[in-house]
Amino acid sequence: MRMKMKLWQKNAELDAEIEKFTVGDDYLLDKKLVKYDCIASIAHAKMLAKIGILSKEEDEDCHTAIENFLVKKCGDAGKKIHAARSRNDQVLAALRLYEKEEIAVIIVLLNEFKSKIKEAIKNYGNTEMPGYSHMQKAMPTTVSIWLGSFIASIEDDLNLLEFTLSLIDQSPLGSAAGFGVPVIEVDKEMAASLAGFRKAMENPLYAQMSRGKFEALIAGALIQIMLSLNKLATDLVLFSMKEFGYVSLPDEFCTGSSIMPQKKNPDVLELVRAKYHIVLGEEFKIKSIISNLMSGYNRDIQLTKEPMMNCIETAKSCIKIMALLMENLKINETKCKEAMIPEIYATEELNKLVKQGVPFREAYKQVGEKYG
Amino acid sequence: MRMKMKLWQKNAELDAEIEKFTVGDDYLLDKKLVKYDCIASIAHAKMLAKIGILSKEEDEDCHTAIENFLVKKCGDAGKKIHAARSRNDQVLAALRLYEKEEIAVIIVLLNEFKSKIKEAIKNYGNTEMPGYSHMQKAMPTTVSIWLGSFIASIEDDLNLLEFTLSLIDQSPLGSAAGFGVPVIEVDKEMAASLAGFRKAMENPLYAQMSRGKFEALIAGALIQIMLSLNKLATDLVLFSMKEFGYVSLPDEFCTGSSIMPQKKNPDVLELVRAKYHIVLGEEFKIKSIISNLMSGYNRDIQLTKEPMMNCIETAKSCIKIMALLMENLKINETKCKEAMIPEIYATEELNKLVKQGVPFREAYKQVGEKYG
Amino acid sequence: MRMKMKLWQKNAELDAEIEKFTVGDDYLLDKKLVKYDCIASIAHAKMLAKIGILSKEEDEDCHTAIENFLVKKCGDAGKKIHAARSRNDQVLAALRLYEKEEIAVIIVLLNEFKSKIKEAIKNYGNTEMPGYSHMQKAMPTTVSIWLGSFIASIEDDLNLLEFTLSLIDQSPLGSAAGFGVPVIEVDKEMAASLAGFRKAMENPLYAQMSRGKFEALIAGALIQIMLSLNKLATDLVLFSMKEFGYVSLPDEFCTGSSIMPQKKNPDVLELVRAKYHIVLGEEFKIKSIISNLMSGYNRDIQLTKEPMMNCIETAKSCIKIMALLMENLKINETKCKEAMIPEIYATEELNKLVKQGVPFREAYKQVGEKYG
Amino acid sequence: MRMKMKLWQKNAELDAEIEKFTVGDDYLLDKKLVKYDCIASIAHAKMLAKIGILSKEEDEDCHTAIENFLVKKCGDAGKKIHAARSRNDQVLAALRLYEKEEIAVIIVLLNEFKSKIKEAIKNYGNTEMPGYSHMQKAMPTTVSIWLGSFIASIEDDLNLLEFTLSLIDQSPLGSAAGFGVPVIEVDKEMAASLAGFRKAMENPLYAQMSRGKFEALIAGALIQIMLSLNKLATDLVLFSMKEFGYVSLPDEFCTGSSIMPQKKNPDVLELVRAKYHIVLGEEFKIKSIISNLMSGYNRDIQLTKEPMMNCIETAKSCIKIMALLMENLKINETKCKEAMIPEIYATEELNKLVKQGVPFREAYKQVGEKYG
Repeated sequence: MRMKMKLWQKNAELDAEIEKFTVGDDYLLDKKLVKYDCIASIAHAKMLAKIGILSKEEDEDCHTAIENFLVKKCGDAGKKIHAARSRNDQVLAALRLYEKEEIAVIIVLLNEFKSKIKEAIKNYGNTEMPGYSHMQKAMPTTVSIWLGSFIASIEDDLNLLEFTLSLIDQSPLGSAAGFGVPVIEVDKEMAASLAGFRKAMENPLYAQMSRGKFEALIAGALIQIMLSLNKLATDLVLFSMKEFGYVSLPDEFCTGSSIMPQKKNPDVLELVRAKYHIVLGEEFKIKSIISNLMSGYNRDIQLTKEPMMNCIETAKSCIKIMALLMENLKINETKCKEAMIPEIYATEELNKLVKQGVPFREAYKQVGEKYG
Repeated sequence: MRMKMKLWQKNAELDAEIEKFTVGDDYLLDKKLVKYDCIASIAHAKMLAKIGILSKEEDEDCHTAIENFLVKKCGDAGKKIHAARSRNDQVLAALRLYEKEEIAVIIVLLNEFKSKIKEAIKNYGNTEMPGYSHMQKAMPTTVSIWLGSFIASIEDDLNLLEFTLSLIDQSPLGSAAGFGVPVIEVDKEMAASLAGFRKAMENPLYAQMSRGKFEALIAGALIQIMLSLNKLATDLVLFSMKEFGYVSLPDEFCTGSSIMPQKKNPDVLELVRAKYHIVLGEEFKIKSIISNLMSGYNRDIQLTKEPMMNCIETAKSCIKIMALLMENLKINETKCKEAMIPEIYATEELNKLVKQGVPFREAYKQVGEKYG
Repeated sequence: MRMKMKLWQKNAELDAEIEKFTVGDDYLLDKKLVKYDCIASIAHAKMLAKIGILSKEEDEDCHTAIENFLVKKCGDAGKKIHAARSRNDQVLAALRLYEKEEIAVIIVLLNEFKSKIKEAIKNYGNTEMPGYSHMQKAMPTTVSIWLGSFIASIEDDLNLLEFTLSLIDQSPLGSAAGFGVPVIEVDKEMAASLAGFRKAMENPLYAQMSRGKFEALIAGALIQIMLSLNKLATDLVLFSMKEFGYVSLPDEFCTGSSIMPQKKNPDVLELVRAKYHIVLGEEFKIKSIISNLMSGYNRDIQLTKEPMMNCIETAKSCIKIMALLMENLKINETKCKEAMIPEIYATEELNKLVKQGVPFREAYKQVGEKYG
Repeated sequence: MRMKMKLWQKNAELDAEIEKFTVGDDYLLDKKLVKYDCIASIAHAKMLAKIGILSKEEDEDCHTAIENFLVKKCGDAGKKIHAARSRNDQVLAALRLYEKEEIAVIIVLLNEFKSKIKEAIKNYGNTEMPGYSHMQKAMPTTVSIWLGSFIASIEDDLNLLEFTLSLIDQSPLGSAAGFGVPVIEVDKEMAASLAGFRKAMENPLYAQMSRGKFEALIAGALIQIMLSLNKLATDLVLFSMKEFGYVSLPDEFCTGSSIMPQKKNPDVLELVRAKYHIVLGEEFKIKSIISNLMSGYNRDIQLTKEPMMNCIETAKSCIKIMALLMENLKINETKCKEAMIPEIYATEELNKLVKQGVPFREAYKQVGEKYG
């Protein structure tokens, strides 16, 4: 996108300071979008050919030009592709294709992670361990229930991701700068379908409004995944403390200390725990940037790109590392057994009394006096 | 919930300071939940009768007790309903029923708001007005496109709400404190179905994990609605400035100034605009509170209740007031027409040249020189 | 403020819906400001008398009117006080006086809390306990070092509070709606001094800009205190777990469970921990509301009042409850001693070897092999 | 910091995935800290020499080693510097020195920006322009009052920065991993003074607690500056719209459109406006990461480094670009004059009547009827 900006400078000298400020490292982010820009551009070119703006020959030249994009400059036909679109819908289409692909990748990663948890449950599921509430030993539970809660959580996360993928699967092609394409009758449905979108956005101004709004949705879906990971990491850091010892973390996931030779620190888990907050901060950036802005494109919106990409990259790397960890996690069955102190069975005793006909409050009092 | 807490105080004197701190105004929030607590309790009681913990007579006494809840104390049978559940799943079930009903209400309100916008489009849709990008007049658009973009946004918001409603429609009944009910074999599916839930949560620990997590989802759906309203309010405040004058706000939605007798201030719209940030703050409270907490119930989670309720109440009141405003909004067609300065047609001229065969960049240069 | 709004309605019928929306529960918040509004109004009236807008007699009538404010309606002289000011600077002055007094109260509470920690150190300071890093036992420390870290933190918090108090101690009186008072030459310095402010704000538009900006500062100071409390609460919840047992929480600060008779839950601490996030959410509401708004008063700003008051009330109640808890906290010296496992002295051994001349890395390796 | 990590890996093979996850691009951030690490290390070495851990010769070798750090590996003496410190206080000291220097730079930049505003006031200050409240023309004001409000804001921002600089100016040297240095009696005051700190942190655990806490303070100070810039940018975007035309933005600060040849977009200002939210998101990350963590170092804290650096870099670049813009800003005096419609003088008329003895409410009614 960087190169093209200069075309529209109306000969005003672009002060280096200003370019640095407005462009910054944005071209690094845009590298990730080149592939998707090409896909959307080819779809747009095909549609232009269909409605007679490009000849069949020019259409083919365009594809070649786009395909050769990274090695040589675009030819004349390549330039003609700018007809009937704006930088706005071009960037938006590329972004949306990128987001669709990345969400699909995350769905795959999340399913893989789910299988790793299932394997751990296969190995250790029947092991009894203390269930905690208020961070106090409360009632007996099993590794299967404990780890299974994360599977249930991930299943809801997957539903949310799939819904999000479907909701954002709307093509902005043909919306141009938010007010459609005058004079030339573009075929938005065709362009949408060629680029692989579920449907075209009918209202061109909504295409603009959806920028940031959809990124907020994506961030909101990813934070749910990060929450599942944050809780798992929090549990694992706690349960791997020597005071508990219910789990053993693989050495590779830990680091030593520079002055305490005996230390084995759960750095990976601490970082996963912290990265929930990174994604939360990025989500907040997106949702804060897009507020109090009038309809139509505002440059502010561009700054939602980096937070959105950061959310995606962070989620991907955290899911991957946690799948790897789950594969290597050891449950210390002896330690779990030792932790099953008698009072953890108090509710069981209570319910036995209730079943025998003792009124609930009476039974509660009896058991309370025994263990209180 | 307040009365019951005292039962479990183990005779320790509850210092007034501490009660004030832990209970505070929570009972005010809980008032909203009483109805739903009753619904869930009746479902639970029926299930207990079915599995033989309550006799048929006791079951009926329970319903009477619950139905008379607000006028008299529960009888003995009423007390027995505490068997096989915990305060945790009791509160959770009530919360979820409340949330389901409120989301359904918001869906209705949002549809009503949509019709009001449609009516405004019926009245004024064909009026041409300037389309803005970068807050600069860009291209011609119409009231139909402008207001239509909010309809498109609301339609996506409605999809999100319906998905959210379905995702959270899971019964925690039978999960007790997160570790299920020992000894007594509760029928979770039956209780879920009696209380009107789509399904029961199988993993009892996930029921605990879903508290806060689901509230975060709800807040994330509501912030999307608030975003649509924030943008509409921002547009209306701007377009009702005398410098634009495209819209006239009904007098009732404005206030005067204490020292500037000529002023007509768009207070309602300013508050709607600001309330986006209120909901955003509440969303981040929820998402921040639930982080870095180990599995199982932690009292922290209780503090997600007020933010969630605040999000719901704020969304409801803002949708209602904006529907009322939309009903009374006037578009000033003369002002809109006057605003259509010649350069706003530059893209149209550009595209005409392109259609006549002038290369895009050549055409761009020509038109640019004319209006630049 | 509510009553006065109606005066400026220009006879437009104020629809009940709209009043509910714009006023809401705001009058409840304003109750806290009445006292401060009176103080500022008396200062304003005295200044008006000095510059000849009020006669000496009217000035006295005003004070009487204000002093009788809550029991009877203001007389004619009371009405004249509206000269040379606007609702804007009136509200702003009251808010600022309220904030000043509340910050002063928090400084006192924080100092009391500090003494409670000092007393605990006096009682238990020499007790050795494990120092943790990465949530792993790392090196020996003492109760004195552990609790002392909170004293050091509070001392910095106190500095920040005092700085904040001084920075916001600027009078908006005379700034009216942000553009000063035309025709009448008000004496801003005199009004400021009479109302007890450090100085008057010279630029009237900055007085408007400071609303929200100063509230953000206050929230930013209070979140630092909440952070100190959040960490202390996190430590105490952990250290009171049976797996550690370093501290015993007083019974009054704990609650029981409805189904687990043996439980003693650290509810107060969990709530203090969670309230950090409440204040954080309020802080971000304030900082989000005030963004992207043009200069001059915007009604949006009014919605920073409730978050600011909520931050103040929350901070006050949390400091008080933690001081109460600190007064009653017991350190379990036996448990602390038992926790001092041999490897916790590894760094000490390492440094002994270093002092004896063994190169650092050689020593590190030796000790690491012993305890690793 | 990266190289050193490997030393403590206890021969466990560091899987590439894990290294990528834990290290990531952190070394890029650390590049900014190398200089400050050297300064702190030299101070530490000098102190070690003074207390006899290093010989005078070794001390000098250390400095050479450090000074040659970037071109060759450290010699044996260089290695000995690790005595009596930990990676924790090493990193902390470097961070704090970096922060001190950067805040000092921002103070300089802010003062320069202030002079640019003063120059603009010198050129245009007397020009009358409309003062707005509720985004409605309210009362007459001047360019001097309008731009002067930002000077007043910056002056408070400078006070806050100076206070923040002083508060964080505390040396962590000698705190090691949060529990001090056993066996070797380090001289913390000496190390602090040699490294240029105002004072040493006495409590070693507080040194750990201050990480993140101080970064939160810094972010909280910078967001105040960003708020001043956000408001100025919001004003300028609005006032440069053709509907107002009060200001003309220099061409270099604007960009064109790819399809609208007539457009001149205020991109720089839109980005400055948006960057408030970027800094706010980073502030939230810091304040969210550090919550719910027990005392002592947790790796989570490392992730506050990038947000803090991002806040600093963003603030610096935004102040610089706005100073540049202020230097080139033109006020369109004709447009300002044209905007002074009669009703803007309503409050003046009102006050004249009041001064003539007409009761306030009577005068208000008269003037209101004239312009309402």
